[in-house]
Amino acid sequence: MAPQYAPSLRGRLPPLALLLETIFIALFAFLVEYEEAEIIKENPVTHIYAEFQDVQVMVFLGFGFLATFLFRYSFSSSGFNLLVASLAVQWAILLNGFLFSFHHGKIRVGMKSLAEANLCAASALISMGAVLGKTNPVQLLLMALLEVLGFTANCWILQTWLKVQLVDSIMLLHIFGAYFGVMMSWILFRSGLEPRHEKERSDRKTDLFSMIGTLFLWVFWPSFNSIMISQSLLGRKLSAICSTYLSLASSVVAAFTFSAVTSPRGKINKVHIQNASLAGGVAVGVAVSAIDMPWIAIVIGLAAGLISTLGFRYIKPNMELLFKCHDTCGVLSVHGMPGILGWVAHFIIRVTQSSSATE
Amino acid sequence: MAPQYAPSLRGRLPPLALLLETIFIALFAFLVEYEEAEIIKENPVTHIYAEFQDVQVMVFLGFGFLATFLFRYSFSSSGFNLLVASLAVQWAILLNGFLFSFHHGKIRVGMKSLAEANLCAASALISMGAVLGKTNPVQLLLMALLEVLGFTANCWILQTWLKVQLVDSIMLLHIFGAYFGVMMSWILFRSGLEPRHEKERSDRKTDLFSMIGTLFLWVFWPSFNSIMISQSLLGRKLSAICSTYLSLASSVVAAFTFSAVTSPRGKINKVHIQNASLAGGVAVGVAVSAIDMPWIAIVIGLAAGLISTLGFRYIKPNMELLFKCHDTCGVLSVHGMPGILGWVAHFIIRVTQSSSATE
Amino acid sequence: MAPQYAPSLRGRLPPLALLLETIFIALFAFLVEYEEAEIIKENPVTHIYAEFQDVQVMVFLGFGFLATFLFRYSFSSSGFNLLVASLAVQWAILLNGFLFSFHHGKIRVGMKSLAEANLCAASALISMGAVLGKTNPVQLLLMALLEVLGFTANCWILQTWLKVQLVDSIMLLHIFGAYFGVMMSWILFRSGLEPRHEKERSDRKTDLFSMIGTLFLWVFWPSFNSIMISQSLLGRKLSAICSTYLSLASSVVAAFTFSAVTSPRGKINKVHIQNASLAGGVAVGVAVSAIDMPWIAIVIGLAAGLISTLGFRYIKPNMELLFKCHDTCGVLSVHGMPGILGWVAHFIIRVTQSSSATE
Repeated sequence: MAPQYAPSLRGRLPPLALLLETIFIALFAFLVEYEEAEIIKENPVTHIYAEFQDVQVMVFLGFGFLATFLFRYSFSSSGFNLLVASLAVQWAILLNGFLFSFHHGKIRVGMKSLAEANLCAASALISMGAVLGKTNPVQLLLMALLEVLGFTANCWILQTWLKVQLVDSIMLLHIFGAYFGVMMSWILFRSGLEPRHEKERSDRKTDLFSMIGTLFLWVFWPSFNSIMISQSLLGRKLSAICSTYLSLASSVVAAFTFSAVTSPRGKINKVHIQNASLAGGVAVGVAVSAIDMPWIAIVIGLAAGLISTLGFRYIKPNMELLFKCHDTCGVLSVHGMPGILGWVAHFIIRVTQSSSATE
Repeated sequence: MAPQYAPSLRGRLPPLALLLETIFIALFAFLVEYEEAEIIKENPVTHIYAEFQDVQVMVFLGFGFLATFLFRYSFSSSGFNLLVASLAVQWAILLNGFLFSFHHGKIRVGMKSLAEANLCAASALISMGAVLGKTNPVQLLLMALLEVLGFTANCWILQTWLKVQLVDSIMLLHIFGAYFGVMMSWILFRSGLEPRHEKERSDRKTDLFSMIGTLFLWVFWPSFNSIMISQSLLGRKLSAICSTYLSLASSVVAAFTFSAVTSPRGKINKVHIQNASLAGGVAVGVAVSAIDMPWIAIVIGLAAGLISTLGFRYIKPNMELLFKCHDTCGVLSVHGMPGILGWVAHFIIRVTQSSSATE
Repeated sequence: MAPQYAPSLRGRLPPLALLLETIFIALFAFLVEYEEAEIIKENPVTHIYAEFQDVQVMVFLGFGFLATFLFRYSFSSSGFNLLVASLAVQWAILLNGFLFSFHHGKIRVGMKSLAEANLCAASALISMGAVLGKTNPVQLLLMALLEVLGFTANCWILQTWLKVQLVDSIMLLHIFGAYFGVMMSWILFRSGLEPRHEKERSDRKTDLFSMIGTLFLWVFWPSFNSIMISQSLLGRKLSAICSTYLSLASSVVAAFTFSAVTSPRGKINKVHIQNASLAGGVAVGVAVSAIDMPWIAIVIGLAAGLISTLGFRYIKPNMELLFKCHDTCGVLSVHGMPGILGWVAHFIIRVTQSSSATE
């Protein structure tokens, strides 16, 4: 794996990983217990378990394989994704526990904490997409820990001070992850960017591996957007699932359409299909608690697919010129801009709803 | 993707897709709402959600990857599968809404409508298998819309006029999809069939990608056959799940056995394994509401595997001679003939049951 | 597939498979019925169905693709996995029915029997990993039937005579499967071991296919370890799920760390990542009914990952010298030794718990 690093760098990964794991074990030993049976009885495990598994497939397999299109880095993409996610979830369980459910000196772990930790890990994996293929694993790990710390702190501020709902704050993971990643890419590689055309080369087969990642993310996205909505709000959960599904369907149409339209020879670009098809899930995720009509979800999906395709066509190749940074997997176009779109849509819908309510 | 089309043809895909999506958005805006919370409370989302996700994996990933064995068309197979399915589900939601649940000028969308739309899309994707690799995307899209229209109309006639149960009518999707696809192939390519040996060539790796499609279809088929059975008929749902599982297991045995037996040198053919292993799921699906004993499911699976393997060995290579048409993925052998077998089995079981009941 | 067998050997597969299937059909016809609706009502299908599907993905896709790293044997790995599993589940349904639920001359089949049969099939597939690539399909089939027979007999003895709990006896499948497989490899290949370096060669793409298997096993392992725990013990089910998840996360860290540490040039070995990442799931599975604190699960996962990585680094390459046998997929290091570790951990935890209870 990843033969391009100096041996000295690779030598630093084992001590760092082992040190982190030892610290985590110590913290878990003193602070973390499983949820008690009484709490679980009221809210059976099975209610959220299937959705939790869907999110796990997305985090460990979806994100891991989405990035396998890098021809010479395909195995590393899925391998480092697994390593970073494994450490990030443990870190996120601890941080979320400290900030949101620290009672009598103990953190209680259950399905909801694991699901939340998966979403935080997803946020770190999105950041990773911006720097993949040009960072060493030590940098990746440290960056992921910093990202999860920043993201949970951000959630805590939003929920505690600004009284933002849990689901609204946690769904900002796309925006936070994408801009954190691009910022990191800018910090790490401001000067001396070498051409990396060779590394971004894909082939027929790696494109198919990448498509596996895309399709698993696509299929399970409704679980990703609805898992943090309480089981007691069944109507809201259902509309989150259906909205995500419809929005993803229309961003596929947008990806195919605008990929062909913006190509001088009408050719459809594989990278657009693999990535812009997912933009609808991002945008609806950020706006999920506000969408109450199917057609709005479809329009948001179409707009997100359009923005994402244009981002891949015009912004990604020119980022080195425009912003002096490089975004390997185009997380700005998949998560960053569609996330902002979703946030704006959320704002507009809320304003419209409250104005029509006061009339 | 798909470099073999003329630029003018490719140029027609974006306007068509965008026009369709715009019409869908208009129709959704005027007609479609989410199910109300009261209805959902009685029948919680979670009851059907896990199965819905299984069916989604089959439709978007299973069918998409099953067809990746086409060496030069592998990415297009999964890409166009995604595009066609995305538009077909929206179209199916609207059509099913008009025909079956149009109350007070509104269509209510919930888990059941999405699941039904997925099954209709599956029907269109089966048709697509017959013409894959020799049609342009515009033809694929138009064909899918026509197929979904025909299939839902067929379901409506069966349910309304002939009082056929929902599950019995919708499971005809295999038969309808396969013969519609073969008919389309016959209409489009009656004259001037060129040899397409090059395109049907597979290699070691595309065979494995195709196997991913096979295995996901195989594993989740019990959800496909049981999802439309009401939660109140738990016994029937359970027998549908178990029957599908046992039938699939025996059609795997049939695929291996008869592939080796019919080969002059006793060699097992990869294509038979990838496809005939699934025949049991098709046959049991069509007969699912009648099967009440495990051994019957196993016998049906064995017979379906046999018919499907013989179809691939003797009928598929000779279709151009016999029927002047070509069936790229062999949908006639995977869905068409095993579907008819299931239908005949359904009929025989019903007759036997009623005769033993009257005795 | 598998061109290396003599035609006469290949000729024996069809009659054997067909004979077995015919015997199974006869036994099913006389003995097996579906569970009655009354039993199902108390314990709805949906409670275990999602977990059952997860286990199915692991058995039919996870194990099948984990072994695809064998360059010249990749399709056969997944194909024979499907065939062996299909026959093993039917055999396991019959054997489990005879031994554990034979009432009034009938075996009742439901979700629990299918889940149990999947676990027994998993045990046979683990054995298969030790002899893969050097046995013909007829040997594989006979071995699998023998393994399932031995394993269910072992479960029956433990449960009936030694009053071991169901979940504790069935989770020994890793230990039983691994040592049975290695023993078979020793019996079949004691003499005349030729070098098989060519066959064990992998490439960039087969490594990724193998990673698909790893990741699906990894993601769904919590279902594997918790599915046999009764729905009435919700607290136990939750701790099984969380323990497996945490343990897997720490064995990923162990795999990366110790793979780099034990390499002279600090290089991470792909095979270690693909396999040792799963060791935590094995170890926690065997100890699952005893683990009641999260940190214990993490420590067990770390230790299992360490043992497994060391096994791949030092024992697997020297097995032919040490034990005169060869273990193709390293099942001793993935399932055998981590299983023993889990068993020891189980024993230690129980002793500590009872001594602290008596104090």
